[in-house]
Amino acid sequence: MSDYRQRAENVLRRIDQLASISEDSMGITRTFGTGAFLRGSALIQQWMLSIGLQTRTDSIGNVRGRLECANIDAKTFVLASHMDTVVNAGKFDGPLGIIMSLNLIEQIIQSDKPLPFHIELIAFSDEEGLRFHTTYLGSKVVAGSFDSELLTKRDTSGATLAEVISEMGGSTINLAEDAIAPENWLGYFEIHIEQGPVLYERNVPVAVVLGIAGQKRIDVTFQGMAGHAGTVPMTMRQDALCAASEFVLAVEQLAANQPNLVATVGKLNVTNAASNVIPGEVNCSLDVRSNDGALLNHTYQALQDVCESIGWKRSVETTWTLVQETAPVACDANLNATLAQSILDSGYSLIELVSGAGHDAVPISNVAPVTMLFVRCFKGISHNPLENVELNDVAAALQVGDTFLTQLIDQYTS
Amino acid sequence: MSDYRQRAENVLRRIDQLASISEDSMGITRTFGTGAFLRGSALIQQWMLSIGLQTRTDSIGNVRGRLECANIDAKTFVLASHMDTVVNAGKFDGPLGIIMSLNLIEQIIQSDKPLPFHIELIAFSDEEGLRFHTTYLGSKVVAGSFDSELLTKRDTSGATLAEVISEMGGSTINLAEDAIAPENWLGYFEIHIEQGPVLYERNVPVAVVLGIAGQKRIDVTFQGMAGHAGTVPMTMRQDALCAASEFVLAVEQLAANQPNLVATVGKLNVTNAASNVIPGEVNCSLDVRSNDGALLNHTYQALQDVCESIGWKRSVETTWTLVQETAPVACDANLNATLAQSILDSGYSLIELVSGAGHDAVPISNVAPVTMLFVRCFKGISHNPLENVELNDVAAALQVGDTFLTQLIDQYTS
Repeated sequence: MSDYRQRAENVLRRIDQLASISEDSMGITRTFGTGAFLRGSALIQQWMLSIGLQTRTDSIGNVRGRLECANIDAKTFVLASHMDTVVNAGKFDGPLGIIMSLNLIEQIIQSDKPLPFHIELIAFSDEEGLRFHTTYLGSKVVAGSFDSELLTKRDTSGATLAEVISEMGGSTINLAEDAIAPENWLGYFEIHIEQGPVLYERNVPVAVVLGIAGQKRIDVTFQGMAGHAGTVPMTMRQDALCAASEFVLAVEQLAANQPNLVATVGKLNVTNAASNVIPGEVNCSLDVRSNDGALLNHTYQALQDVCESIGWKRSVETTWTLVQETAPVACDANLNATLAQSILDSGYSLIELVSGAGHDAVPISNVAPVTMLFVRCFKGISHNPLENVELNDVAAALQVGDTFLTQLIDQYTS
Repeated sequence: MSDYRQRAENVLRRIDQLASISEDSMGITRTFGTGAFLRGSALIQQWMLSIGLQTRTDSIGNVRGRLECANIDAKTFVLASHMDTVVNAGKFDGPLGIIMSLNLIEQIIQSDKPLPFHIELIAFSDEEGLRFHTTYLGSKVVAGSFDSELLTKRDTSGATLAEVISEMGGSTINLAEDAIAPENWLGYFEIHIEQGPVLYERNVPVAVVLGIAGQKRIDVTFQGMAGHAGTVPMTMRQDALCAASEFVLAVEQLAANQPNLVATVGKLNVTNAASNVIPGEVNCSLDVRSNDGALLNHTYQALQDVCESIGWKRSVETTWTLVQETAPVACDANLNATLAQSILDSGYSLIELVSGAGHDAVPISNVAPVTMLFVRCFKGISHNPLENVELNDVAAALQVGDTFLTQLIDQYTS
């Protein structure tokens, strides 16, 4: 374990070094294509070079390092995470996966064992999607699913995505060539902080990710009748906030009874609110997520029914608008079994989690079997300077990663 | 009844005439001391003169018209309402009471019967309190409870109340002299639109007002824990909006079980709301009103207990701050009995209402027995250009008012 602690210290040092590169001096901000982003990208490329990978920056700005095996026709196993950040970010969301994978690959190189597949480490250029209000720009290019219509999107300064790609030295014409063809994928492995509180609460360092939740985002409006809070008797009211409150609690209760589902009313706005006016209109958001597509659809329908029946009962008109939806992504059963065994072999309890947040594994899952390892983070806090991962947990995750890759190499060697 | 319809037509004509005087051409706005206010005030004074009242404008801008009886030591019975408006007001809130009372007094003058008391008609200058964020400036001067500290308050243009009084030709030194001394009051009668939907829903033109509700206004904050809507399991949440929603429904339910009480959460704000963030903090208002002071206090305590127990159960911290309170005002039992009899004698169903809104009767009730007659308004809509009163209901209220004043005169004559 002391060896893993030393390697973990090295990982944390590099995380700090990358975190020191930011668009501003107050926090950590490295959004796609900015000067700070390019300096961070160059540092990662230098690290890849230093362990002996063949490196390049592709057209969308992903930094890619390859370790090729003797068999030129072998498939490629990808280790990856993203190097861009949100504004005022933590230092682990994204970089942890890149820098730990670098360490794992370095270990493979040092072991000098013959490889049965190529290994590629990718630092994706844009997962958070802040600059162009997109997501997965980097991994979509690698998955071959980049939508070229996005090239004309503009950032707040008016620059198009195509212009930013050119500025970075990329070529919009070559984007398709940077994809790994479906037949060449062996699999995909991403290490990421949990960004949730489960491992912290259960006091376990790592978890295998069963899948990434599908999501439905709904806009709900309750239209009642505004009135004077002093003069309209309770029996004559059509209070939109009371209707919305009943809905909020129904959402909570329905989700509480489903272990594989979360549902949240995050925004709620009373139109023309005043303390002495009975709310006439309330608008709210609903966010429902599950890794079980059938359950997600069933719950969506159940909540719409609940919403309508609350409205009907209270003579409050309801409007229900599906704003966005993504399907659940299942991680690969075989890769997950190997990863789960690696966790047990390393001496840790096996926890299986569903990721409620999206990851680059989502677009990759369309072309390759994917698996993910979650690492415990302090209180589940993320997208925040308070984001933190303990040294011991990095060490534990390195041990699991070593074991996983060794087992995978053994599987394909035998 | 055809006579009452003709008199009602006259009342509605005058209401339209007064409504045509406004600070802007779009709606009706006559706030205290403005040019439109002074033109409206002059018109009312001219109407008072035309029926033979001794008229004057007092120091706070109230227009006062007296009809004195032969006995110089007799007490004074006041009929009144207010002539100021909110911004973009309806035309009945205030003026209906002044102009109907003018019509009732004209009837008394025409009947030529000897009076056992003086009658005074007062058009109060400021009930809505928009300009200086005060209420009852006019009636407080008449009740002798004007607080001279208000004289230094400034409107949005920077003018003090004292300056506005001087501009209108009033004198801040004489304010106390404009009070009617407690021993000189016989009683107070105000006709006003209901500003609520009860008469409209029950299809009755008028109601006697039992009292004016006391009010408590509370600011409530729920402090939970913000979190990612996708990554925090339902069982680990401290959702401030779920806590607030439970509170909103508890408020509704508790008030629904109390006929003499209304309670409303009118404002509700989720701090840093986003559709993918579990609400960490919610702030809301609570407005509780009742004409039963003990019930009001009891409910206040019960709701505070409910709030705390919701917070305790959900590990959400609650903060409860009493922002404002007023005590209930009871109308005078004897005057109300006479008014109720007048309604029955006029052939209408007797409905007794509590006013949830404040009226000039509130400060006057400290020095005199008060009674109020509510007149049905369209759907209870008020403070809105859609405010409306039907001709037939004005006629009905004139009949009731005639009967009431005749009975009152008879009582004091015998």
